[in-house]
This record gives sequence, C-alpha cells and structure tokens, in this order.
Amino acid sequence: MKIALDAMGHDDGPAPLVEGAVLALREYSQISKLLLTGDTPQLEALLKKHGCDDARIEIVHTTQVVEMHDSGIDALRRKKDSSVSRAVDLVKNGDAQAIVSAGNTGAAVAASTIKLRMLPGIDRPAIVAMMPTEQGRHFILCDAGANPDPTPQHLEDNAFMAAAYCEHVLKRPKPTIGLLSNGTEEFKGDVLTLAAHGLLKGSGLNFRGNVEGHDLFEGKVDVVVTDGFTGNVVLKTSEALAKSIFRLLKRELTATPIRKAGALLCKRGFQSVRAVTNADEYGGMPLLGVDGICIIAHGGSSPFAIKNALRAACFSIQHQLNPHIVEAVQRSHDSATHAPEPA
Amino acid sequence: MKIALDAMGHDDGPAPLVEGAVLALREYSQISKLLLTGDTPQLEALLKKHGCDDARIEIVHTTQVVEMHDSGIDALRRKKDSSVSRAVDLVKNGDAQAIVSAGNTGAAVAASTIKLRMLPGIDRPAIVAMMPTEQGRHFILCDAGANPDPTPQHLEDNAFMAAAYCEHVLKRPKPTIGLLSNGTEEFKGDVLTLAAHGLLKGSGLNFRGNVEGHDLFEGKVDVVVTDGFTGNVVLKTSEALAKSIFRLLKRELTATPIRKAGALLCKRGFQSVRAVTNADEYGGMPLLGVDGICIIAHGGSSPFAIKNALRAACFSIQHQLNPHIVEAVQRSHDSATHAPEPA
Repeated sequence: MKIALDAMGHDDGPAPLVEGAVLALREYSQISKLLLTGDTPQLEALLKKHGCDDARIEIVHTTQVVEMHDSGIDALRRKKDSSVSRAVDLVKNGDAQAIVSAGNTGAAVAASTIKLRMLPGIDRPAIVAMMPTEQGRHFILCDAGANPDPTPQHLEDNAFMAAAYCEHVLKRPKPTIGLLSNGTEEFKGDVLTLAAHGLLKGSGLNFRGNVEGHDLFEGKVDVVVTDGFTGNVVLKTSEALAKSIFRLLKRELTATPIRKAGALLCKRGFQSVRAVTNADEYGGMPLLGVDGICIIAHGGSSPFAIKNALRAACFSIQHQLNPHIVEAVQRSHDSATHAPEPA
Repeated sequence: MKIALDAMGHDDGPAPLVEGAVLALREYSQISKLLLTGDTPQLEALLKKHGCDDARIEIVHTTQVVEMHDSGIDALRRKKDSSVSRAVDLVKNGDAQAIVSAGNTGAAVAASTIKLRMLPGIDRPAIVAMMPTEQGRHFILCDAGANPDPTPQHLEDNAFMAAAYCEHVLKRPKPTIGLLSNGTEEFKGDVLTLAAHGLLKGSGLNFRGNVEGHDLFEGKVDVVVTDGFTGNVVLKTSEALAKSIFRLLKRELTATPIRKAGALLCKRGFQSVRAVTNADEYGGMPLLGVDGICIIAHGGSSPFAIKNALRAACFSIQHQLNPHIVEAVQRSHDSATHAPEPA
C-alpha cells in the first residue's frame, strides 16, 4: 500500500509526524511506500535523527504550509504547493491510495472533496470521530465536522457510510445507529433531525431511534449520526471537559502532602481511567464519502497517534472501505426508488 | 413575593419538591406566599412529615401530572388540570409572580409560552443553563433547549436576554458574549451562526466572537449563545461525560485495597472537584422571554437544588429581570432602525 503523509501539518511542525511515520514503517509491513510531503531539508534531518533509511520512504518536496487559522478553501486556492494539497494530488494521480493529515482540517476536507471528488451516490463528505464510553468500547460520531449544513438525505448517507466503516473496518457486524437529538422521544428534534429520523426509520439500517447527550457515554449504539456543526461542538466539548476535569483533579490532588500521597497510591487507577478516555489508540478520523482514503488526525497528535492514523489508512484500503460505502448507498437508493409510495 | 411550585413534576415524585419548599421558606423571608400545585393528600402528608405548618404555604389541588415522556404541547392540551399547567395559570392570573417546575421541560416551556405569552419585542423563549468552568466561575449557556430552530434574530435576542440576566440577576456588569460555533475563526459556522455573527457584531453587546467546544470550560466569556438544539446537546453531553468520568474513577479507585486507601487520603480533593462541577448551587434554569418568571429545574433535582431554584425565582423578581430584558431588546431594535444602512 502506498500512503501520502502531509508531513508539515501539525501544531508542533514536522517532528511528531516523521516520528510517527518511522514507527508505522517498523510496525506495518503492508506499507510499500510512504510519501512525505514537505520541506526536504527539514524532513531529511528528522529522518536522520531517527536513524531511518527505510527505502519505502520518499520525500515529495513542497514549499508551502497551510496554517491552522487559514480558511480551508482559501488555502487551497492560494497555497497550491502546500504539503496537504500536494499529498492529496498524490492520491488523485494514483501515486498513493490514502492521505493522512494532522494539519488544518478545513484544508484537508476542501482539498480531498474538490480534488478527489465524491464517491458515486454521495453528495457531501463526513468525518468519523471515535468517542470513548464508560465500558471502554468506543462509538462512532459522524459527522464530526465536515458538513455543518447537511440535508436530511446527507444525514442518512452519513449513517450508511459510518455503518460501512464500523462493519468492514472496525469489524462490528450489524452496527446499531442512533440519531443525536435534544431528547430520545421520536417527536424531539429540530427540523433537520425530525426529517432525518423518518428517513433512517425506513433505511433498513439497524436504527435505534434518537439518542441524547445523556446517552452518549453509555455505549447504547455503535454509530451516532449528527450534522457536522453539532458533531464538531460535541467532539470539542467532550475533549475540553475531560481535560478540564483531569486538570482540576491534578490541581486538587496535589494541593496537600496527604493528598499527594493518596494520589500516588491511586496512580494505576488514574492510568486505567486515562487509557479508557485516550483517543490516540485510533489516531485519526476518516473523512468518508470522498473518492480516496483520507484520514484526518488531531493537530496535536502524538507520534503514537500518527502511527495509528497510518494504520487506519491501511485498514481502510485493505478492507475496501470505499467499495463497501458505494455498494451500501447504491442499495439504499435502489430500494428507495422501488419502494411503494406511502399512502 | 408569591411563587408557584409545580409540586408533582419530578423524577421521584413530590417528596424532594416539598422538602425544597420547606428549606426555601426557612431561608428566604422575601417569599410571602408559596403555592404548591398538586395532589392535596400527598402534599399535606409530606408537609406534615417535615413538621411544616408555615402559613405562607398554600396547596392548589390538581388531579393530573405530565409525565417525562409526554410531548409538551400535547400534554398542555390533554392535561388541563396538570400541576404544571395550573402553576402557570397562577402566574397568568396574577396570583403568583413566578413558577418553578422540575417536571417535563417541554410542558413547562409550552405552558409558559402559550399562557403567559412573550415579552414585547421577543419572538421565542430561551433557556439559560449555568455551566461550570475550571476556575469555578460559571458561564451561561443560552439557549439550552427551548427553541431548536431559531433564526439569526432569535440568537441575537438570546444574547440580549442572557446578558440582562447576567448583569442584573447575577450582578456581573458588561458581560462578555461568545457565539458557539465549529471554530473560533469568523468564517467558521453553519448558515445560522454565520448570520448571527454579523448581527452580534453590530449589536453593541460586549461580543467576543466565536467560541468553540475547546473554549467552553476555560471561562473565556460570561455568556455562550447558541440554538436550543445544540445547547441542549452540549448541556446533556457535558452532564453525562462528567458523570461517566466520576463513575469510572470510582470503579478504578476502589478496585484494589491500596487504591482504596489512596482514595481515602484524597477524599477532600475529590470533594473540592465535585463542588466545582456541581450545578445544584444554581438549582434552576430561567426560561427567558416569557411574560412572567419561569424557572426550570432538573428532573432529578435534590431538595437543595429546588431551594436554590426558588431563590433564582426570588432574585429574578427582585432584580426586575423582565423589565430589563424588555428595555435592552427595545434599545437594540431602536438602534437597528435608526442605524445608517451599510454601504
């Protein structure tokens, strides 16, 4: 498998990306080529630092970097030689099968959507985020930020795409689907979710109705479908709240010598809690719906998370994610066309 | 002050409500009358249990209860003698100045909106939720669930109403306002928030631009404005995640005798963290925009939280919340009318 890594897009520059790439090459023999897009001298120096002379690595020199505050579409127009844009070009031209980027999410979404185009039958992309539950089993939040203004049909497509990812890549058969709303009752929702609820009920998916914020971390469903605005707010709010609680705990549990001693005895317990809530294990969020595999990683990803994002790219290729998505959506559209009209 | 308490609407029936009422009467001498709507024998028995023969309490007998799964509008039509509907009638007829309900939120919103009607200049109601931050100072989330499909103008009105609450009831002068979006940059948002952003920039409020999920618990602004769908999801997701993390901590920190001993030494630290994240101190969420004071409490409220919800009702009356809202909105509409047209 050939994978392109946007080797400049990261809050801390290329270092964590190159380290993640080196880790991935050591672990995943299925990677036959890893194309790093970015500034050659910087990338070569980092590879040298890690003593990496793996012949599967190839550097594709680029001269521009999309910053985190840039608008995605603007950056695509103004910075044609950016590391993320060139990495997507590699997929577009058939030199790679997947792209991994931890840079500006808007830019990765815009470049992938515009250059790779959408899969047949799909109108808009959606981002998958893996969210932890109390039981340790993660659920899929989709869309976590690609499409802030979807139609009800887009939400149904999100459900099909996320279900295909869940079934074929994560290997959870017949995934259960919930629709995020402001209440579990069927009559709850905004105009968008009320319409999407109707579509999902008739979709043939394993649809379990509405889920609300209170249900999220109890693992009631495998996939939580929502629009990209609400999904993005939920993802970031959850990340922020978990971090705030842990910082607060740290502050309070180091406030006196007695508490410090107690915290030391609890150390392994805290590590277990951290392990459950850690998203690095998944490393990246697949952008579903585009004609090519695109994995979006957190701007502050650790090298371990980048390694796992590259693994997510491998799995998505290996398990034929996109052909499965096309088939599922095609089947749903066919059955909708042939279904008898409601009385 | 005369306050009506929906004395049947609670996950655990009337007991916590009556206990909260008794606590409030002991503490707040400004309450001249507390009207409890509900089943007279049950309420009398509970009052007797608490040894309460306070002459300020009056029971208004009602025969129906709106259940938590009922649709608000339906319940209003079908259950005309429900405890919540009758409590709102008391305000409508001038027998009380405020209503407090911990029952079905949809029913309280529907009854208040339809029976009390909106304040002049306001189109739709909005719920205020108090959310904790790491620093202990709470911020206001508005709307937390009253209006799932607002217009940009409704979001601007939410900002004015929440700012008035913040300034006059919570006594924070010149409150800062943020607009919840899927990114802090001005170009981020769905169609609704992009339009609301423009209105808020020209509103004369202390508007600080977009805030995203990552910013919420750092206390960047006093008021976070959002639609009732997203706000409700954020409120419930935050409550659920905090509970999940605390349950997970409890499970892990009681898993071995050593951890148990450590947790015991840390006990006061955990209590401090709990205190910061506890919403009982505020007790209720004001429903802004209706012509009367309506405080909505959590369905699982403790008696302490109910007591504080009654206090929120007193403060809102005492500090003239509604006249201040009308004045602020009127001023904003006047200045919008007289403002020069943009070039």
